[in-house]
Amino acid sequence: MNQDDRQPSGRLLKAPENFLDADGVRRVFAEAKDGRRGFLRQAFVAAGAAGALGGAARVAAAPVSGDGDPAILELPEHSKGLGQAVVTDGYGKPSKYEANVQRRQSPGLTQTAQASVSFAPLQSLFGIVTPSGLHFERHHQGWWDIDPSKHRLMVNGSDPGLLKKPLVLGMDELMRLPSVSRFHFIECGANTGMEWGNVAVPTVQYSHGMLSCSEFTGVPLRVVLDMAGVDYKKARYVLAEGADGSSMTRTIPMEMVESGEVLLAYGQNGEMLRPENGYPLRLVVPGVQGVSWVKYLRRIEVGDQPWATKDEAIHYVDLMPGGLHRQYTSIQECKSVVTTPSGGQVLLDKGFYNISGLAWSGRGRIQRVDVSVDGGRNWRSARLEGTPLPKCLTRFNLDWVWDGKPALIQSRAMDETGFVQPAMRQLREVRGTRSIYHNNAIQTWLVQEDGEVKNVQLS
Amino acid sequence: MNQDDRQPSGRLLKAPENFLDADGVRRVFAEAKDGRRGFLRQAFVAAGAAGALGGAARVAAAPVSGDGDPAILELPEHSKGLGQAVVTDGYGKPSKYEANVQRRQSPGLTQTAQASVSFAPLQSLFGIVTPSGLHFERHHQGWWDIDPSKHRLMVNGSDPGLLKKPLVLGMDELMRLPSVSRFHFIECGANTGMEWGNVAVPTVQYSHGMLSCSEFTGVPLRVVLDMAGVDYKKARYVLAEGADGSSMTRTIPMEMVESGEVLLAYGQNGEMLRPENGYPLRLVVPGVQGVSWVKYLRRIEVGDQPWATKDEAIHYVDLMPGGLHRQYTSIQECKSVVTTPSGGQVLLDKGFYNISGLAWSGRGRIQRVDVSVDGGRNWRSARLEGTPLPKCLTRFNLDWVWDGKPALIQSRAMDETGFVQPAMRQLREVRGTRSIYHNNAIQTWLVQEDGEVKNVQLS
Repeated sequence: MNQDDRQPSGRLLKAPENFLDADGVRRVFAEAKDGRRGFLRQAFVAAGAAGALGGAARVAAAPVSGDGDPAILELPEHSKGLGQAVVTDGYGKPSKYEANVQRRQSPGLTQTAQASVSFAPLQSLFGIVTPSGLHFERHHQGWWDIDPSKHRLMVNGSDPGLLKKPLVLGMDELMRLPSVSRFHFIECGANTGMEWGNVAVPTVQYSHGMLSCSEFTGVPLRVVLDMAGVDYKKARYVLAEGADGSSMTRTIPMEMVESGEVLLAYGQNGEMLRPENGYPLRLVVPGVQGVSWVKYLRRIEVGDQPWATKDEAIHYVDLMPGGLHRQYTSIQECKSVVTTPSGGQVLLDKGFYNISGLAWSGRGRIQRVDVSVDGGRNWRSARLEGTPLPKCLTRFNLDWVWDGKPALIQSRAMDETGFVQPAMRQLREVRGTRSIYHNNAIQTWLVQEDGEVKNVQLS
Repeated sequence: MNQDDRQPSGRLLKAPENFLDADGVRRVFAEAKDGRRGFLRQAFVAAGAAGALGGAARVAAAPVSGDGDPAILELPEHSKGLGQAVVTDGYGKPSKYEANVQRRQSPGLTQTAQASVSFAPLQSLFGIVTPSGLHFERHHQGWWDIDPSKHRLMVNGSDPGLLKKPLVLGMDELMRLPSVSRFHFIECGANTGMEWGNVAVPTVQYSHGMLSCSEFTGVPLRVVLDMAGVDYKKARYVLAEGADGSSMTRTIPMEMVESGEVLLAYGQNGEMLRPENGYPLRLVVPGVQGVSWVKYLRRIEVGDQPWATKDEAIHYVDLMPGGLHRQYTSIQECKSVVTTPSGGQVLLDKGFYNISGLAWSGRGRIQRVDVSVDGGRNWRSARLEGTPLPKCLTRFNLDWVWDGKPALIQSRAMDETGFVQPAMRQLREVRGTRSIYHNNAIQTWLVQEDGEVKNVQLS
């Protein structure tokens, strides 16, 4: 570099060719290389978890890294050639280098792929939004791509006295009505279900991947019930029914509808719902297990008592100790999980890592997440990203310097009601080990000395 | 329906076959049909814009709709058959019925499709998230899908005294550092550029579609500059340089970096950046025009003065009256646009519509959006969805009953600094008509008597 160009008088006219030339690049690489060993072998110090920078911890000046690879001095093709044209032939796709980031089906979990589950790759996701192409799936009789111009929503009462006027609405009519958009998580009631029986599935994709979060757009169900002239004094329940062959039916208490939270949703993450997630219409029931978010929604019936349909009388009940079971336990309680590091990942070296995970509660906002790296003996509060939204995923992060010894990583969430996520042991004391549904226990990841991360259950 | 089933004693055991049978469906359809004309022809009354229901206006009991199509009594295939299996062979896609929702290139706007623009279909989007597959594009020399394992970020000083230690970081090293996720809009400085010269492009996709909004995840640039030991007293500017053939270079004031807002971003909407938007690394500079969000980011240089590179000295300057120009006007000022109804759409009938649009400001949060349906004579405050986030899109909605007469629809945003979006006339008074960049004027859509919506400029 020509030091004459450093003079203030010339600076504003400094031409592009005075940017780092080959000699400059070599010098910078050589200097950076000196410090590389230090970066990987030593930890650098994180100066406070809830530091400045709007939530990011500041790291103190630290040994630096350098690649030193001389090949980098040869300009790659993409720095010399003409790239590809704008993408106007359809719909953009992820990089070919991300092809491994996919929903996955658990082999053998179900007998057919039409009545099955695909799990979202939580270990590869950031922030709180789940890309719609990676949103978990749960089908009871397969998915369909229904023509929205032919789809209808019917609104009726189980008894004629419960509403003044039944309705049949097309999508065009629905989409003219006042709409709202809100971010909410959706979790299958069976998420983390395998862990009740001491089965530690290997990755967070399979242990917690029936969980996703989107910005949903739709018409509050209450708006449509108002149009139908529902008598809210008598009609205290709603039945939602899907149009696919499973005829999924679920009872929803009217107070959820009256609050304005329950949506007749057509939008997800800015665009129309995806076919495998209920296009063109699904019910959004914030905080409630996914099965109640009825897909391909074709009918809403108002009634004065729960319906006790097959899917709520036989399935999605909590088997309790002593042969009893709990029913209508539909709210997803406060829960969290560390997604990085998590089962199946490998820490390549000691030093600094950003522990990251997700917390959520069907009761409202996440208030605090604590993280332990020693199996629950000591806890540190993680920093929550942004302002936690109600019944929505909250991303948390914690600075961690791994010393190369075995570590047991856990997260424990607390919501605004004061509910604290229980240990597996505490949950089993109350609910036994025969359940499938509603496991919100603390998850433990073992980081082995060789860096491999495993799912373990602490006794 | 068997009214015996209405008795309380039997209700909890009511079997699925007691749901509405064919007779019940016929009855409901017949009743609903009576009210259908009313729904489409008459308006129903919206009871206050900022009503209950968490932001949604409640609508009063109103004439109801019904389809009456007897064909609907024949169960469609999707209610009888077995649907498709879970999607585990790749990445989910939108419905085939949404194939028309695409990014589009403006014919003739640029000479090649590698140095071009594709516009996001704002008229079809909901909420604030732009699906990554529909995010607008602006390339200066085409896009690339760069191997992240070979990508490096270099950090150096324009003068050796400005930092202690240059850095070269791989993606693996960057992704171990403390990260944050935040929702921000990105708008090209040339968005709405055609309108300066009285050219009213037909649709909101072409007039405002160089605008998108995502949840971005990355490492605050300040964290890495701290690691490099930058002397912030001297180093008051940052130069960002991209790895593609255009070697895009932009000066960014250090105070933006010091605030923690500027991110070395690898994540977008929960997954890795898309190739056409800078995979694997792009700079996120909230509130600033898109060209500074350098894609394929390969180098950060710190310096004590702006660099005045080609792209900031010759392009992206504001031509002013009298032959002058403004430079470094990089912040996107407060702006809004109604996306529904908007140019190219057709209102099929009189009655209720949900006017919906987007507002944003590079200075902070949106505080208020007013909407006029008479060309700016009268204004009503729209309801803002959720809590507006800083330097992020805010969705607004307003109930509107169209009486079938011509209407001039406008929106006018105000941000938390008190800045009010100007009329086109006001903007032209100050800045003339020769500009391309930074047009944040109020947009007007004319709804004609036949329901067609056109882009018009009020004199």
